[in-house]
Amino acid sequence: MTTVALDALGAERGPEAVAEAARAVAKEGIGLRVFGREAELAGLDTIEGVEVIATEDAITNDDEPVAAVRSRPGASVVMAAADVAEARSEALVSPGPTGATMTAALFAIKRLHGVHRPALAAQVPMPGSPVLFLDCGANVEVRPQHLVQFAYLGAAFSEAVLGVESPRVGLLSVGEEQSKGTPDVVEALAGLTDAAGLNFIGNVEGTDLASGVADVIVTDGFTGNVALKLMEGTAKAVAGAVRDAARSNPLAAAGGLMLRPALGRLRGQLDPDTTGGAILLGLRSVAIVGHGSAGAAGIANAIRLADSAVRESAVERTAAALEAGGATRKALRPSEPSARA
Amino acid sequence: MTTVALDALGAERGPEAVAEAARAVAKEGIGLRVFGREAELAGLDTIEGVEVIATEDAITNDDEPVAAVRSRPGASVVMAAADVAEARSEALVSPGPTGATMTAALFAIKRLHGVHRPALAAQVPMPGSPVLFLDCGANVEVRPQHLVQFAYLGAAFSEAVLGVESPRVGLLSVGEEQSKGTPDVVEALAGLTDAAGLNFIGNVEGTDLASGVADVIVTDGFTGNVALKLMEGTAKAVAGAVRDAARSNPLAAAGGLMLRPALGRLRGQLDPDTTGGAILLGLRSVAIVGHGSAGAAGIANAIRLADSAVRESAVERTAAALEAGGATRKALRPSEPSARA
Repeated sequence: MTTVALDALGAERGPEAVAEAARAVAKEGIGLRVFGREAELAGLDTIEGVEVIATEDAITNDDEPVAAVRSRPGASVVMAAADVAEARSEALVSPGPTGATMTAALFAIKRLHGVHRPALAAQVPMPGSPVLFLDCGANVEVRPQHLVQFAYLGAAFSEAVLGVESPRVGLLSVGEEQSKGTPDVVEALAGLTDAAGLNFIGNVEGTDLASGVADVIVTDGFTGNVALKLMEGTAKAVAGAVRDAARSNPLAAAGGLMLRPALGRLRGQLDPDTTGGAILLGLRSVAIVGHGSAGAAGIANAIRLADSAVRESAVERTAAALEAGGATRKALRPSEPSARA
Repeated sequence: MTTVALDALGAERGPEAVAEAARAVAKEGIGLRVFGREAELAGLDTIEGVEVIATEDAITNDDEPVAAVRSRPGASVVMAAADVAEARSEALVSPGPTGATMTAALFAIKRLHGVHRPALAAQVPMPGSPVLFLDCGANVEVRPQHLVQFAYLGAAFSEAVLGVESPRVGLLSVGEEQSKGTPDVVEALAGLTDAAGLNFIGNVEGTDLASGVADVIVTDGFTGNVALKLMEGTAKAVAGAVRDAARSNPLAAAGGLMLRPALGRLRGQLDPDTTGGAILLGLRSVAIVGHGSAGAAGIANAIRLADSAVRESAVERTAAALEAGGATRKALRPSEPSARA
């Protein structure tokens, strides 16, 4: 049985949503250690496999993440991350502020040996074959060797947890040609083209996040964050416009009603709650950053994603893939300072 | 009457689409000088206000834009750009390869006094209030002062041609807080916050390209290109999924038929042909980069956009806005080399 450290404070929908998610996954046999206010989580610790660890301190969006994580060991997300680091739990799940979750995870759980920078990976909420997209915002600036590592991190997770065999990895750029993109992207393309053990398909473009040509798409955290939020905004705007159209006259309204059941699957695919959240890849344990606006269903899916990642040994397989591909930090720095002199 | 220099070679849908567009806009009183193969444009020069200038040489996507534009003065897009530079036409429109059109325009038409880098601006094909988005790919790397200029370029065009009064300008980043984003974005935010004569609203996020909070959104050409293509891909994927749903069973199919007329407006909003193409801002004349896959309707809209921009004195008003805001190249470099010493 997997034991997940769950931060019950900081979810936009409140502790009720977290408690409801906890009850749902506990029934499925996932163990939980829940960090939050006892009064808000009443009755939760009477469920088999669930423990509540009391804390009142919640890091919010108004706090500066690094300063808050450093100075508040009693904050729920800091306690939950420490719980994983000290091996009382196997995975961290927090639906609280992204920056605080990433910082707490990075400080307590630490990077895998040879990893430059952990990356935030999300399954793109698009119809058709799902794409694992990273970095979605952990690193606003990256170097070419970071992008090469992200490709290994993403491919290993896609294979281990999402069950994609030999995942096709693309590098996000502004054209398919080798010369397209920033100098860093051009250099990363060269590195990825030479990379061992990767099914690298070259540059892909913005359209390809929804075209199905790649299973994993790699970019810097600035572009990735903008793109992920843009997809959410676009899906919402289009869905809203379809709804408005269906309200514009009685005939359309009747048509909308008749079409609704068939649209259910699409609604699920476009809903960020379905994927449960993003995973911080490159750490020594599993850490899931829940979607800020997630309800109970979304938080439950985030916990299930953590459970899958633990059961499928995502971390161990990621470490092995990095080593086998020669993509650890040391291997990707051909010229060590001493060699340069 | 505006006279537009139209490149008839290089459109993905062929010269027939260009000729059809030319016939449509000529009827509306827009003058045209069309550069292409006489045999493919037969009869076009019998229309009042339309001249055909014969050339066989087309720059394609396989050509390296800078080398091709430099070495082939007889290429249709190079001739059309020269026609504008030499004041025989007032605006350039090309539905051919983007890189070649931008290069030909930049080389022949040249930058406005004090402009660092021209930027490619597109009206975002989203439901709701349209957003002018730049840079969509002219500059994959930009400095903070370039982003500040893009804000003036976009605001001036939005006001002059799109009729938005005091357009709200946002800077694309990964969070609303001042500290969010790359160092360049943080520095641009500071510059824009101090900028005179701009209705600057601060950082916006990816979701805001479809949320209606801003009339103009500014970013670097890498992020902008990825985002624009992503929106197209997303809209296409969602529309395809809705179509699939409507085919999944007879009830849904009937519903889809009944909903279709009401969805017509949305289809128009999501269709890149509706906006007609992107405009290269910061040049001494109007230059429109048509959408590669545009049909006759899209090319006609690109020509109409050029006509509006000329009639509304978009270039002159952009130059005036840059001067008034103190945003010319010289003004944005507070420390001149001589002053530093």
